[in-house]
Amino acid sequence: MATISSYPFTIQPENVDFTLHASVASIISYMLNVAGTDAHRKGFGVEALQGHSFTWVLSRLAVDINTQPRQYSNIEIDTWVNEFNRLSSTRNFKMRIGEDVIAAGVSQWCMLNMETRQAVDMTQLKDIYERAMVAEPSPITAPARLRDIEPQASVSRPVVYSDIDFNRHVNTLRYIDLIFDSLPIELIEKNNGMRLDINFIAEALYGEVLTIGWTSEGNVWQFEISSDSGKKLCRAKIEFK
Amino acid sequence: MATISSYPFTIQPENVDFTLHASVASIISYMLNVAGTDAHRKGFGVEALQGHSFTWVLSRLAVDINTQPRQYSNIEIDTWVNEFNRLSSTRNFKMRIGEDVIAAGVSQWCMLNMETRQAVDMTQLKDIYERAMVAEPSPITAPARLRDIEPQASVSRPVVYSDIDFNRHVNTLRYIDLIFDSLPIELIEKNNGMRLDINFIAEALYGEVLTIGWTSEGNVWQFEISSDSGKKLCRAKIEFK
Repeated sequence: MATISSYPFTIQPENVDFTLHASVASIISYMLNVAGTDAHRKGFGVEALQGHSFTWVLSRLAVDINTQPRQYSNIEIDTWVNEFNRLSSTRNFKMRIGEDVIAAGVSQWCMLNMETRQAVDMTQLKDIYERAMVAEPSPITAPARLRDIEPQASVSRPVVYSDIDFNRHVNTLRYIDLIFDSLPIELIEKNNGMRLDINFIAEALYGEVLTIGWTSEGNVWQFEISSDSGKKLCRAKIEFK
Repeated sequence: MATISSYPFTIQPENVDFTLHASVASIISYMLNVAGTDAHRKGFGVEALQGHSFTWVLSRLAVDINTQPRQYSNIEIDTWVNEFNRLSSTRNFKMRIGEDVIAAGVSQWCMLNMETRQAVDMTQLKDIYERAMVAEPSPITAPARLRDIEPQASVSRPVVYSDIDFNRHVNTLRYIDLIFDSLPIELIEKNNGMRLDINFIAEALYGEVLTIGWTSEGNVWQFEISSDSGKKLCRAKIEFK
């Protein structure tokens, strides 16, 4: 058993949007950076796994945001792993300013063998995992499993150089950008918080064309990103408060 | 008179491209961040100017890159101002790993009155400036003044939420992304260094459509970015080594 770890940050100018608050993509970026750092410190980071040709893949994420922190705010992110099974590991986040929780997240990860492109049975890492687990419940409900939508509108654009990471796959955070770039900007400017659920299904490659489709009903927006081969890449749902 | 200031950084995962080296946009981002921090420390940062409704605007930039540093490399950036006149101030950069200069830059800035949108006569700040000047020549020749091109090819796309800064203008670094996204990816993957000159002419607003046009001849690529009103926003030239 372990305890919750906390990581301090100052919100940098390159992480705020035109409202001078951290964008949702930046909030998620801070959380994912903490996931990488904390996994590394606890002995199951990407570096340790690469000895086995294994890597972490984010499969689902839920984030509940009350307040987007302002530029130069000092925040802390608490993180802990509280569940794992053969195919999935759950890592949690609380973003705080002092004692005030401004955002919380739950992420589900699977482990991929990069040679076979197959999921790895994580019970292989049971010993390391059991030492790293924290007996603290997730701060919000687990990410929803999202279903197909019938898009009311869509936009398309090719995958470009600045979208891709070292696998030549579209970077996870770029999907968040694509989703928020599709929303009416007034909704982002005047939001009073939101819950976002995302399912990552497949990876887009350099040269493919992405289509972002969406529907909206009241304060709920649903998104689906697919590639020109018809492959579904990502589904998301935002419920504004 | 002052002396050259140096700022250390470690190249972070979010600043590397698919080759695991810092992208050119990231190298420029590190330099521009240093410009902001150093101006602040010397008493003429954006915060000090906002008392006068003034802000800094980058008008031209030249960067000569020998080596793009790898992820987790420890770099240092030297910066100094060595020239100013009524309308323009020159700030220089050397990016080093140890004593080895891997990239160098020269930037020219003007000061804008945000209320009148007119350039400010910088001799008003003569006293602060003279204390901050360093008697050290620029590390490379000044940014070229670039002329119109006849594009051989072009792509267009709208300005979106994730492109804009607090003025609702397209962020400077996004122009660098748009330029590199237009290059054949093999040229980025296998480059042996380059010199980049950029002229920033006007600002694009949320809702406008950007067109990126280019020509290439041998190892020289020229770019021009305009908005749907026909307004020229930016010209650039890359000469690969």
